[in-house]
Amino acid sequence: MSENFVVTATAPVNIATIKYWGKKDEKLIIPVNDSISATLSSDYMCAKTTIAISPNFEKDQIWLNGIEESIENPRLLNCIRNIKNKAKIGTDKLKWKIHICSENNFPTAAGLASSSAGYACLVYALSHIYNVKENISDIARQGSGSACRSIYGGFVQWYTGIKNDGSDSIALQLAPASHWPEMRVIILVVNDKQKKTSSTIGMQRTVETSKLLHYRVKYCVQGHIDKMIQAIKNKNFDLFAEITMRDSNQFHAVCLDTYPPAIYMNDTSHAIASFVHEYNAAANSYKVAYTFDAGPNACLFTLEKNVPALLYTITKVFPTSGSVKDYITGIPINIENKSINAPEINISMQSDLLKYVIYTKVGEGPTLLPDTESLLNREGLPLRLA
Amino acid sequence: MSENFVVTATAPVNIATIKYWGKKDEKLIIPVNDSISATLSSDYMCAKTTIAISPNFEKDQIWLNGIEESIENPRLLNCIRNIKNKAKIGTDKLKWKIHICSENNFPTAAGLASSSAGYACLVYALSHIYNVKENISDIARQGSGSACRSIYGGFVQWYTGIKNDGSDSIALQLAPASHWPEMRVIILVVNDKQKKTSSTIGMQRTVETSKLLHYRVKYCVQGHIDKMIQAIKNKNFDLFAEITMRDSNQFHAVCLDTYPPAIYMNDTSHAIASFVHEYNAAANSYKVAYTFDAGPNACLFTLEKNVPALLYTITKVFPTSGSVKDYITGIPINIENKSINAPEINISMQSDLLKYVIYTKVGEGPTLLPDTESLLNREGLPLRLA
Repeated sequence: MSENFVVTATAPVNIATIKYWGKKDEKLIIPVNDSISATLSSDYMCAKTTIAISPNFEKDQIWLNGIEESIENPRLLNCIRNIKNKAKIGTDKLKWKIHICSENNFPTAAGLASSSAGYACLVYALSHIYNVKENISDIARQGSGSACRSIYGGFVQWYTGIKNDGSDSIALQLAPASHWPEMRVIILVVNDKQKKTSSTIGMQRTVETSKLLHYRVKYCVQGHIDKMIQAIKNKNFDLFAEITMRDSNQFHAVCLDTYPPAIYMNDTSHAIASFVHEYNAAANSYKVAYTFDAGPNACLFTLEKNVPALLYTITKVFPTSGSVKDYITGIPINIENKSINAPEINISMQSDLLKYVIYTKVGEGPTLLPDTESLLNREGLPLRLA
Repeated sequence: MSENFVVTATAPVNIATIKYWGKKDEKLIIPVNDSISATLSSDYMCAKTTIAISPNFEKDQIWLNGIEESIENPRLLNCIRNIKNKAKIGTDKLKWKIHICSENNFPTAAGLASSSAGYACLVYALSHIYNVKENISDIARQGSGSACRSIYGGFVQWYTGIKNDGSDSIALQLAPASHWPEMRVIILVVNDKQKKTSSTIGMQRTVETSKLLHYRVKYCVQGHIDKMIQAIKNKNFDLFAEITMRDSNQFHAVCLDTYPPAIYMNDTSHAIASFVHEYNAAANSYKVAYTFDAGPNACLFTLEKNVPALLYTITKVFPTSGSVKDYITGIPINIENKSINAPEINISMQSDLLKYVIYTKVGEGPTLLPDTESLLNREGLPLRLA
């Protein structure tokens, strides 16, 4: 098997600061409004995918996190077909069967936007296999809407576009991660047992039943987008924080206005939001902002200088019964430092409301890895199975 | 002391099916939208107030639930002043000092609209002391907004009105309780320790910060009001149930769109809402509807014929570790009956999410009680102190 026809790549998770919720075209996955996200560093959370094509493979196959899955997933087949349509390789090779092997370096079940990283990684790797040079975000979009934003690093805008075929519903980078190198991200993974409405079903129901969503789309989101672009451009953390929190709250408000309601935040999520408001009030300025996706986990944005005091306070307000060392993963940090000057907060919650904390930062888009990182062996079969 | 100058009355709690949230005049308590409520039977939840005036009293005094409170409460003084302005008694008697003694027959802290019953009872009793014959709901409104709806029994609409002085922001009865005698109410009192934003502060903040509230007021509430009137008029429970739940959800959505958010429902509240949707789905028709005020407790509306199966299922899904006999208070009911045919529901929550359950119905407005029911002795002092 020629080494040109094996590609291994990683792609990052992205977290929306202006939320995508609702499609105007279910099949093409065209959103009802623009959204903006920050791409997270692949060092701590990413999808990793190896794709191989070969005349020797008998059939198309896919393995996700070490388990073989059916390739007959319409969204997956769509991505492969769309990439092949733009392929610049010999037509014989287009007929070769494909093996796809993908893993996340974080728990899929944690509700941490794993499908966006997964589809971004798939489409990015496919584009390298099939030699596609165009903007591929619209193809990633058709795998999992928000995956299109994971095609770029830094701060990214996904445009709803105006064309019926969705060809202008693409993501573009607003600014690279290096533009605002102080930006840090802390993910609080919440312990939760509640069954949630899937985001696909939830957003469909919101579009059908929530009047407030239509108002949000028509009169609120563009203002949030404009302010968010301005906040990023000027590195204005106060504005960034306020708009991020307001947009997250409004997104969950339209979920609640849905009939029957789609509830994603739980008591712990609300306790985190309340803690953030109290922390900022105690510090008398915006030190941290929260945002919540279609699940209970919190994603906090803050600046590097604020991290020690903030993480220190989080371990006090949301204590773990285990060791703090295992509680905080990601970028190594010492929060035992005596000189930490944290604002005084009078909240203390019961232990173990959080599973763990990931300390990370804004990072780069997908990248190719050397062949030594391949997830497939020379026969095109997974090196590891679950 | 002449018996004409002592009055004892009770007034009921009311539960809004179309919610009041937001004032257009903070001082006069004029709401941004109309609301509709059902008045609950005073047999199980009510405020009881005795008012006495006498030339022998040295000063104005008030006792609430057996504890003397300051009479210098602006809203309280407002109510007294407004009633006196319309008084039809000798001017000498207007100068006599007043003693007010009030009790609730349910825990004030339970967040069960105790202030609406309390102010309705105060104003109703005052109107009898001072011989006021006019509509007194606008005076009760200035005590506690929703108190104006407790001046009437059955189903009640509170009009926002168009006058700047609030004189047409009054409540009127849509239908007496006897119009829909099958209507039943089940209150699920939720165990909760969270600190909540007061409703006065919460609604002020919503008016200032939520764009969705303004849309709700301008484009959504009137539709809900029209449909609710139609549902009540035609005794259409399906429509009543759907609009009640949609309006409750939209109210909590605008609370969440508030900045910082005002959160009143907790995980248990959402579990109850989810249970109601599943119960109706399993029964393949509207058997029950929920509504939530500015707190975690649920108020369920249902028809008499559905009560045994519903209460039976509630004790299974939200079990108590104590005795079922103590768990369900209010109208006596036997839910041990073998013939109960309840829809199959596959949810079971942990024990003791609920404190207790009150089974009650739609009832009448305030009433006068005989002197034997007085809370004050012949000297005008409380018979009971806490």
